[in-house]
Amino acid sequence: MRTSIATVALSGTLEEKLRAAAEAGFDAVELFEDDLIASPLSPERIRSLARELGLGIELYQPFRDVEALPPELFERGLRRARHTFQLMNRLGATTLLVCSNCSAEAMDDDALAAEQLRRLAEVAADHGIRIAYEALAWGRYVDDELHAWRIIAAADHPALGLCLDSFHTLSRRSDPSAIRRIPGEKIFFVQLADAPRLNADVLEWSRHHRCFPGEGGFDLAGFVAEVLATGYRGPLSLEVFNDVFRQADPRHTAVHAMRSLLALQEGLGLRPAPPPAELRGWALVEIAVDDRSAPAAAELLGSLGFSRAARHRLEPVELWRQGEIRILLDARGRPSAGGGTGPRLSALALRSDDPDRSARRARALLAPPRPLRPEVMGEDAVELVAPDGTSLLLCPAGGTGSRVTGFRPLPAATAPRPDAGLSHIDHVELGQPLDRFEEALLFFRSVLGMRLEESQELTAPEGLIRGRSVSSPSGEVRIALTAPLVEGGRAPGGQHLALACGDVFATARALRALGAPILPVPGNYYEHLAASAELEPDLIEAMREHGILCDRDRHGGTLFHLYTAALGRLRFEVVQRVGGYRGLGAANAFVWRAARRARRGR
Amino acid sequence: MRTSIATVALSGTLEEKLRAAAEAGFDAVELFEDDLIASPLSPERIRSLARELGLGIELYQPFRDVEALPPELFERGLRRARHTFQLMNRLGATTLLVCSNCSAEAMDDDALAAEQLRRLAEVAADHGIRIAYEALAWGRYVDDELHAWRIIAAADHPALGLCLDSFHTLSRRSDPSAIRRIPGEKIFFVQLADAPRLNADVLEWSRHHRCFPGEGGFDLAGFVAEVLATGYRGPLSLEVFNDVFRQADPRHTAVHAMRSLLALQEGLGLRPAPPPAELRGWALVEIAVDDRSAPAAAELLGSLGFSRAARHRLEPVELWRQGEIRILLDARGRPSAGGGTGPRLSALALRSDDPDRSARRARALLAPPRPLRPEVMGEDAVELVAPDGTSLLLCPAGGTGSRVTGFRPLPAATAPRPDAGLSHIDHVELGQPLDRFEEALLFFRSVLGMRLEESQELTAPEGLIRGRSVSSPSGEVRIALTAPLVEGGRAPGGQHLALACGDVFATARALRALGAPILPVPGNYYEHLAASAELEPDLIEAMREHGILCDRDRHGGTLFHLYTAALGRLRFEVVQRVGGYRGLGAANAFVWRAARRARRGR
Repeated sequence: MRTSIATVALSGTLEEKLRAAAEAGFDAVELFEDDLIASPLSPERIRSLARELGLGIELYQPFRDVEALPPELFERGLRRARHTFQLMNRLGATTLLVCSNCSAEAMDDDALAAEQLRRLAEVAADHGIRIAYEALAWGRYVDDELHAWRIIAAADHPALGLCLDSFHTLSRRSDPSAIRRIPGEKIFFVQLADAPRLNADVLEWSRHHRCFPGEGGFDLAGFVAEVLATGYRGPLSLEVFNDVFRQADPRHTAVHAMRSLLALQEGLGLRPAPPPAELRGWALVEIAVDDRSAPAAAELLGSLGFSRAARHRLEPVELWRQGEIRILLDARGRPSAGGGTGPRLSALALRSDDPDRSARRARALLAPPRPLRPEVMGEDAVELVAPDGTSLLLCPAGGTGSRVTGFRPLPAATAPRPDAGLSHIDHVELGQPLDRFEEALLFFRSVLGMRLEESQELTAPEGLIRGRSVSSPSGEVRIALTAPLVEGGRAPGGQHLALACGDVFATARALRALGAPILPVPGNYYEHLAASAELEPDLIEAMREHGILCDRDRHGGTLFHLYTAALGRLRFEVVQRVGGYRGLGAANAFVWRAARRARRGR
Repeated sequence: MRTSIATVALSGTLEEKLRAAAEAGFDAVELFEDDLIASPLSPERIRSLARELGLGIELYQPFRDVEALPPELFERGLRRARHTFQLMNRLGATTLLVCSNCSAEAMDDDALAAEQLRRLAEVAADHGIRIAYEALAWGRYVDDELHAWRIIAAADHPALGLCLDSFHTLSRRSDPSAIRRIPGEKIFFVQLADAPRLNADVLEWSRHHRCFPGEGGFDLAGFVAEVLATGYRGPLSLEVFNDVFRQADPRHTAVHAMRSLLALQEGLGLRPAPPPAELRGWALVEIAVDDRSAPAAAELLGSLGFSRAARHRLEPVELWRQGEIRILLDARGRPSAGGGTGPRLSALALRSDDPDRSARRARALLAPPRPLRPEVMGEDAVELVAPDGTSLLLCPAGGTGSRVTGFRPLPAATAPRPDAGLSHIDHVELGQPLDRFEEALLFFRSVLGMRLEESQELTAPEGLIRGRSVSSPSGEVRIALTAPLVEGGRAPGGQHLALACGDVFATARALRALGAPILPVPGNYYEHLAASAELEPDLIEAMREHGILCDRDRHGGTLFHLYTAALGRLRFEVVQRVGGYRGLGAANAFVWRAARRARRGR
């Protein structure tokens, strides 16, 4: 089906919006009147620019408050409409969106509405234009698409049809199956928007909080399935009013929007894509350092029980190991996508059942693989780029450790330092810029086939944080995405690398012996734990000694975890899961973040 | 009355919060449990720190889900309570907030609730502690303060009383007069929060959207008056959960909070302050430039018809004039509070009926005047600093032009350039950082006695903008404050200086002759105006010729306005008001902002 996006969903000037929509592969746009009025381009130039970009102008909108009016007001509306039809002829737009009347002058008279819409359609037809009538959820008398359809049926003119908008339908009812009663050829246009389930004023909800399909609480796939059942084969157009997208880079938003529409169509069997390859766990993670921070990073890894296992023959890259964990310390000094310069997680390498298929899927979902850096990674890997700039390397799941190339193993020390019992990567947290958070969720969900976990709200001394994790279906790869709830003058979000161990107390003792910089936890925390009387006093004492936090879930699972001092944006966490604990210790976010802040003396 | 603030209303670590509250002059705090748990300071150290800072710990909170429970659950709650009482003894806190039960185990049994609260109060009394019971608006069975009061009355224990929270009361009803029925000595604590009127889930509304008194839609003065009528003389404590304040600098938030409480008390006659002096119009505005931008600024002023009237004897400051408008071009290179370096409005000088009284009032409202820079401004002026760093100079309303000193008039040119008919300053727009917007509104309202106009939402190509204006009661001084609705990576908000003229077409012709860089307006705008058929075609043609926009209000008033190219953050606007038009042309914000964006080629 043809894909379209409303210009109002994108930020910038009309030209920027058109270019962004075209680059993301949309077939068409809905042109908003305000975007036209504010553009220095003439209607003819907009038409030719759209044509050059391969975009149709599928709809012009909105035209308001024209039907069910006293005669003189309707005549005035008809004069306005003639101007609009002439303008649309110059633009090459052939469908006009007419919203159900919201004005105080509207009358509760369906026969009058039908008669006036019919006259409007006659004039439209003279200009080669069709009218798509839409029931706004806050229309004065017509606020339901079935009501709008009864009026259209009564008006009975070939140039008059219906515009459906998933927001207006799904904000009023959860079951859109009544749409089936409408003949598909009388549905002239379909607008799609998802939205979180809010108990809010519907106008406020619609104007500020819409989001792309799959990112809210509505069943967009079910809605589109009902629309398809009518026989409708027109465009699917995203009309998303959202405060964040209105100020984000339109090129990012357009790709994000298109990806959501591709995923929606894939789910409905309309546009097949290679299925996601299963992810089989972590191959390695890469930490970017610069000349100044490289020694501190090496010292920190050593104090965590890692050993320097190999050094690259040509590049300033080292391989560190402990248990199954492999970390590349990369001092090549590549710039950070986020703009920061300090140490950070710059690449995550994941084992994939089929990297080639992952690459094909990524291409189909507008995330083309980047040419690999073959000097370090094996040529059988595929490199994708997450919305925050983090590199994602997909390596074949089989084999031993051949994904890195060009390394020269270092001779084992004669008296090797003991490790700390860290066995594998539990999860990774990637702090996102606020305006990339939804895009990142969609990227991991659609491109990599990961699953979204429940949203969380975390409290930090610096403000509230949104958190949502994605995990591979097998559960072996888990990435926590976080972003500030309100963006301020604070630093970009932190990252952390959570490493699993089998016995957090043994690991904590080993870390102490190795001199690891463990984040101290306030004594008040342990007193509070003691007051809740759920843990043995001896256990609490042992936790206090080592700065270990714990969280318990409703099913009796327990997480024990501790944090290190930060290395640039990056922190290390050590976790032990007991009794099937699945969470990420969100309840302790305030404690350790405040401890970190207090320690920094800020 | 004693003033208090909840630690949860401030951002940062507990120590930062306590210091910020003390610096702003609060008498006490409500200590949130999470802030204690996450603090590296022991309860004894927190107690002594608070004492050193002159702060009482007026309340410890929250204690949840303890009453109306099956016996074994209540006993467990009582054990928790004993720990809490011991902790409070160490903190020196004597009142515990107990929230009405929200848990699934709570029973709808007021007699049981009363009996268990009585037992809790007995144990509390043994520790020298009082229980303040609060009805949460989302309590399972007790969600109303009168219901809570009936239970307290039935329990009848001297250590059990009520905690009132204006949010819980006013979110449920607009008339708080029923509070009068409660004896003042049984009200143990009063929490204050305002909130915008939202049609939203009450928990979400309470946890994210509270604001300081006078900044929302609730009648806080009416609420406090009812509380005072009961005989209550305990503390007034601000408990404000707000996403923005949670991430803002706590020192700013604490001053902002205290100022709101001072203004509230002033309004109730509880804490008199010198009344605001009437503002009598603009004395001058100052534009800060640096060496590089000074020539461009001078050229722009010249092209707008301003003449260089005087030059300072010692400092690189020039005085430019046109009509009643005086502009100082200040190249002393003082740093910008907003961090920017380009040209900007750095000071607004206003005529005041009584600058000395303004200074005393400002001191009373935590905005102490800054030592004046006497080398430029007369010594009879007073300098305040707005939250965004803009200097506000209050000059005596009488006299001629003696507020500036040390200037040497420049000889009039033999053939003076014509001016452009600009007569006076219409208004000034100051773009605010998102987290200073409310603080700025409060500053102008309380410190300067200005009036708040209606809020507006403006659309720009870069995103949505909040706008709200303040004006002096006489209407002679008007300042539009704007801020992005969602903060992103965009530049700090712009500023503009709107200059009035009596005939916008004559002024536009003069500006053209002078070579002023007028912002071109898209032809589509004029075609749209023509389609609406409300203006004469000749008038529209004249507007098109000069890049003039217009806006009409419901009462037949019309604004004609045009914009210049920007000078750094600063733009000039020329306005003519016809037929009593009062607005600021918000309807055209998208057009001129998009035109500016398109022109910059971004």
